Amino acid sequence: MAGSSFGHLFRVTTFGESHGGAVGAVVDGVTPQVPLSCEDIQTQLDRRKPGQGFMTTPRNEPDTVQILSGIFDGRTTGTPLIMILYNSDADPSAYDDIKDMFRPGHADYTYFQKYGIRDWRGSGRASGRETAGRVAAGAVAKKLLHQRGVSVLAYTLRAGGVACEEFDPSQIERNPMRACDGKAAARMMDRIAKVMEDNDSVGGVVECRISGIQAGLGEPVFDKLDAELAHAMLSIGAVKGVEFGAGFSAAEMTGSEHNDEMTSDGFLTNNAGGIIGGISTGNEILFRLAVKPTSSIAREQKTTDVSGAERTIVTEGRHDACICPRIVPVVEAMACIVAEDHYKRQAALFG
Amino acid sequence: MAGSSFGHLFRVTTFGESHGGAVGAVVDGVTPQVPLSCEDIQTQLDRRKPGQGFMTTPRNEPDTVQILSGIFDGRTTGTPLIMILYNSDADPSAYDDIKDMFRPGHADYTYFQKYGIRDWRGSGRASGRETAGRVAAGAVAKKLLHQRGVSVLAYTLRAGGVACEEFDPSQIERNPMRACDGKAAARMMDRIAKVMEDNDSVGGVVECRISGIQAGLGEPVFDKLDAELAHAMLSIGAVKGVEFGAGFSAAEMTGSEHNDEMTSDGFLTNNAGGIIGGISTGNEILFRLAVKPTSSIAREQKTTDVSGAERTIVTEGRHDACICPRIVPVVEAMACIVAEDHYKRQAALFG
Amino acid sequence: MAGSSFGHLFRVTTFGESHGGAVGAVVDGVTPQVPLSCEDIQTQLDRRKPGQGFMTTPRNEPDTVQILSGIFDGRTTGTPLIMILYNSDADPSAYDDIKDMFRPGHADYTYFQKYGIRDWRGSGRASGRETAGRVAAGAVAKKLLHQRGVSVLAYTLRAGGVACEEFDPSQIERNPMRACDGKAAARMMDRIAKVMEDNDSVGGVVECRISGIQAGLGEPVFDKLDAELAHAMLSIGAVKGVEFGAGFSAAEMTGSEHNDEMTSDGFLTNNAGGIIGGISTGNEILFRLAVKPTSSIAREQKTTDVSGAERTIVTEGRHDACICPRIVPVVEAMACIVAEDHYKRQAALFG
Amino acid sequence: MAGSSFGHLFRVTTFGESHGGAVGAVVDGVTPQVPLSCEDIQTQLDRRKPGQGFMTTPRNEPDTVQILSGIFDGRTTGTPLIMILYNSDADPSAYDDIKDMFRPGHADYTYFQKYGIRDWRGSGRASGRETAGRVAAGAVAKKLLHQRGVSVLAYTLRAGGVACEEFDPSQIERNPMRACDGKAAARMMDRIAKVMEDNDSVGGVVECRISGIQAGLGEPVFDKLDAELAHAMLSIGAVKGVEFGAGFSAAEMTGSEHNDEMTSDGFLTNNAGGIIGGISTGNEILFRLAVKPTSSIAREQKTTDVSGAERTIVTEGRHDACICPRIVPVVEAMACIVAEDHYKRQAALFG
Repeated sequence: MAGSSFGHLFRVTTFGESHGGAVGAVVDGVTPQVPLSCEDIQTQLDRRKPGQGFMTTPRNEPDTVQILSGIFDGRTTGTPLIMILYNSDADPSAYDDIKDMFRPGHADYTYFQKYGIRDWRGSGRASGRETAGRVAAGAVAKKLLHQRGVSVLAYTLRAGGVACEEFDPSQIERNPMRACDGKAAARMMDRIAKVMEDNDSVGGVVECRISGIQAGLGEPVFDKLDAELAHAMLSIGAVKGVEFGAGFSAAEMTGSEHNDEMTSDGFLTNNAGGIIGGISTGNEILFRLAVKPTSSIAREQKTTDVSGAERTIVTEGRHDACICPRIVPVVEAMACIVAEDHYKRQAALFG
Repeated sequence: MAGSSFGHLFRVTTFGESHGGAVGAVVDGVTPQVPLSCEDIQTQLDRRKPGQGFMTTPRNEPDTVQILSGIFDGRTTGTPLIMILYNSDADPSAYDDIKDMFRPGHADYTYFQKYGIRDWRGSGRASGRETAGRVAAGAVAKKLLHQRGVSVLAYTLRAGGVACEEFDPSQIERNPMRACDGKAAARMMDRIAKVMEDNDSVGGVVECRISGIQAGLGEPVFDKLDAELAHAMLSIGAVKGVEFGAGFSAAEMTGSEHNDEMTSDGFLTNNAGGIIGGISTGNEILFRLAVKPTSSIAREQKTTDVSGAERTIVTEGRHDACICPRIVPVVEAMACIVAEDHYKRQAALFG
Repeated sequence: MAGSSFGHLFRVTTFGESHGGAVGAVVDGVTPQVPLSCEDIQTQLDRRKPGQGFMTTPRNEPDTVQILSGIFDGRTTGTPLIMILYNSDADPSAYDDIKDMFRPGHADYTYFQKYGIRDWRGSGRASGRETAGRVAAGAVAKKLLHQRGVSVLAYTLRAGGVACEEFDPSQIERNPMRACDGKAAARMMDRIAKVMEDNDSVGGVVECRISGIQAGLGEPVFDKLDAELAHAMLSIGAVKGVEFGAGFSAAEMTGSEHNDEMTSDGFLTNNAGGIIGGISTGNEILFRLAVKPTSSIAREQKTTDVSGAERTIVTEGRHDACICPRIVPVVEAMACIVAEDHYKRQAALFG
Repeated sequence: MAGSSFGHLFRVTTFGESHGGAVGAVVDGVTPQVPLSCEDIQTQLDRRKPGQGFMTTPRNEPDTVQILSGIFDGRTTGTPLIMILYNSDADPSAYDDIKDMFRPGHADYTYFQKYGIRDWRGSGRASGRETAGRVAAGAVAKKLLHQRGVSVLAYTLRAGGVACEEFDPSQIERNPMRACDGKAAARMMDRIAKVMEDNDSVGGVVECRISGIQAGLGEPVFDKLDAELAHAMLSIGAVKGVEFGAGFSAAEMTGSEHNDEMTSDGFLTNNAGGIIGGISTGNEILFRLAVKPTSSIAREQKTTDVSGAERTIVTEGRHDACICPRIVPVVEAMACIVAEDHYKRQAALFG
């Protein structure tokens, strides 16, 4: 199987390179008769698009989505949706100087090893721009989940060594970091501003909550709900780790500390992160992602070129100093796709 | 899709419940003409089987595998292998008292919510015993990978709050913890013995290395090699998190610290854990797993029964106080399955 | 993808060779809580098993099925069913003389070309014996469909040049041909007896009807209900063609003759065979299969051996002179698997 | 699984409705580094496009394809190709009068039963226009197969009751019927002209040959090469049957007549149609398709409307009186997709 599709019953296929003709997604398996508009999609895309703050890339893409199939009279028909975003501010000349070199931390070297050919213009297929298709597809899933009473919320929990100290969802869209703590967000930005002066970048942690999800979703043995969420999350470029509930701290706990005891009112704790045995408990699903620092930095680094010769490289261009705020809508999109897919899988089980 | 299959071109389907007739696996897509014997499988199964040390379950299963198809004259034929292990020491009566109750930390409640029926005998399908089928399938993949020069090694890195301080692979099979540091293993066991006296259990961290793997494996966008490994690892019962290379510590690093610079001799560091952009770099693949403490503890805990009434429960029975040593061969098996599958996917790309 | 699995949400994987340890199937995605017994499976297997009449192979296999997982207290649990039939009357010595030769009409040559190795004992994986696993899986689907009010009926329509002249379903299980016309069955058997004296075999046509199926099943574009039925049917060894409704005779009709007009009581005709645009109309689904004459004949034929040298071969052994009666339960099984899978796919669409 | 994708390793997803924004396809799994141009695709699309002869629809679509991803410097990159054709001559007003009625023979009724909503403009997703995406994808496969020395050729064998009497491939693209016999083509057109005067349509038979294909392709058990070809062919709208080699006439043959004997020069006959046991023999693959008469006829027919009331309908609009010539490139496209996919599957088996 080629790897550009995700999901089984709600199935997303993305296409497109950063500086090719367009990016976008085809979504097959959409519930029919559901009202859906370009605005539903555009709202989410606008959260992902570049140029939102001082630390994000100044690339100027309006990222206006067109839906070319699968909608009739404002409703979904059950046939595939194609959502497409043409590339308008593609500026490949910026990459001319480094087209033969492998930028450290980027997929340049590995794509070349895999395919023997690569579109070196702005990371090509490996560009974060590919995620526009995911966000478009996720917006469809988000709409379907909303009808089920399910909501998905992601936000920056740590960045540049600064941690949120409170969880205030109302703050998230009010600060450029999409942090759940406004004051921490201010400190994060101070830190990032300093790092940017140093031509460097920072990583962080993004957290995600899925609320209102029913108990019983997830397919043991291999397609556990957490396994599929982990798959989805690690498929996002800069993500290097995922943990559910207590996560890695569970390794330091005893069973009596970690087990979530139950009462007739539900679970007393949520160390499991809302998933036990790969199946949702009905509790909030909670997971965190390790986000690596942006690989593109305007500093001299050692690398090699396609001939194997040693070179030094300074990655100019248009980049985000911290990718967390723009990963947030991508995380939500992927979480929505997984959740919607598993609702359909559960329906099929008894269908 | 029902969730009992994994892999695309090297495809594993497991079956079986803890106290049903048998457990095992069907493997489709096996390379033909490869010498394979029951011993190849049994060796790995013996590493997983119960009764290996003081802290593991005393259940007495010889776990002798039979291969009933797919082999002819000692070689694989390319047709499906079925490997089956009959359950001989099934003792469901031990579960009679708690068949209407949901053990905290176990999948009892979630299976019941999902299916409306559950085999309450020893966790049924959610039992760790299901992983015998994975280990059998993984042993086949391990054999194929060995021919490619690839080796996969997992071991306990932390347990009960005790961390390994050195990486000495020769120690791993010499201590019951399967730790990579013999002295740390001794301290782990001391700690676990104390916790067991307290009728409690501990968690830990398992690390895995895939060596000798070629550059270029992994399918962007969604089936990145790390995404599929994460899927595989989170599909193992007690695993609550996964991180690659620097992992969560990458969140605290800057780009100049995290980027793996390249020279003509290869990468100077391996913060990426051998995978960049979802594709193997040729470097060793390195990841760690958070393993939660065993849920079965002989302590009174609050729970509910199938009628929703509040109860208290003490989980007697035969259990591991720390599951890390027995997860090690399962981790290796799943890693082998992913790696072998991706070798075949890469062959198909150019095939 | 290796090719030993079929279906998406009701998913069947078969395993086993004719003279290996066992044959059988794993079925994943079974609706939970459904009463299911070995007898439900055995009844269908008994229709497929050898030794039922003068023109079928005398191989003596009791074909007793064991269900080793997926059942608890007489009900399905939603976890995979494994159904296994051990091979007891395997007599590979009968094949010793021809193990280096390719029997005309058999898959000997093509398996050798594909795999470079083959289990020459009784056709190995290509044996009709593999279909026991399909029939077992189909019996599960048949049970689920029965609850939906859907029934599937196949029968011999033509054999050895003799055609049924009436459709009397009560006759089907009363004659060894499983023909829908008792008198025609007698003439078929006369004809086959003569052909057998001549050490030859005959082909035929099998017809299948799916009744009670709801309108709206089938997934355009590629997974049309007829496309998936065609896939299922052509996956049966001796089947060389399939046609729906008017089938090939539609090629000779005009649009005004072929179109099924509609009234408020339903369709006036069923030239479409119950499927239009790949979706069930609610009318009976009707299709026919071309079944080739059995390839094994005790006559001298030209062939080659593994070294490429020319040889002559007489295929002794235990064979059916006309495979139609034993294909009938396999056709029903595959039709049931497709129908059940599409019920689940439709549930997922709106689920 | 939603049904708009086909193939496993060479994987095609089509999208689009007849009178929506666009139709097209995404192809994932394309071999990298292969020269590919819009012309390669356009050449095949021009064979499918409307307005090629007196008996085809006069809809005026230039059907100019754009490739928006997956190509760099004139070569494939291994990332998904998206090929898109905008709808320019969409004229939905022609369908206003019949938007509440179900045209006999069309998928109007079944789509409505399935989805509860339908795009009634020109058959929507069920339109033959959807096949433009298939032809585009098939053109990519055709290019890859050409490099392997494989060619695929389809043509009209019968239409309106007139049969070809010779097989002259040079004639196929020289007559509007795409018949393999120029004189028969003239008679077919005479016949069709008469039927058109009568406001009626005709069916036919299309034959297809795959030449140069290696022995050993096809995945037993379920994904036999003929099973997958049958799936592909029955997924084409008007196709109601498929037969391989001797096909339905095999039902009338004896084993000694049907078996293809072998010599050191190869098979003496090709009754099997180039596939035995689901695996290619190396002989030419040969199959025929039953094509039903076009459903759209300008004659009064009985039908019902969405409220269930009885109505009469005359299907005006732009239609083909015989669809065979325009199905020919679709048949080739689907055959190419299956063949290329199986080359890759075979590579994976040993890869």
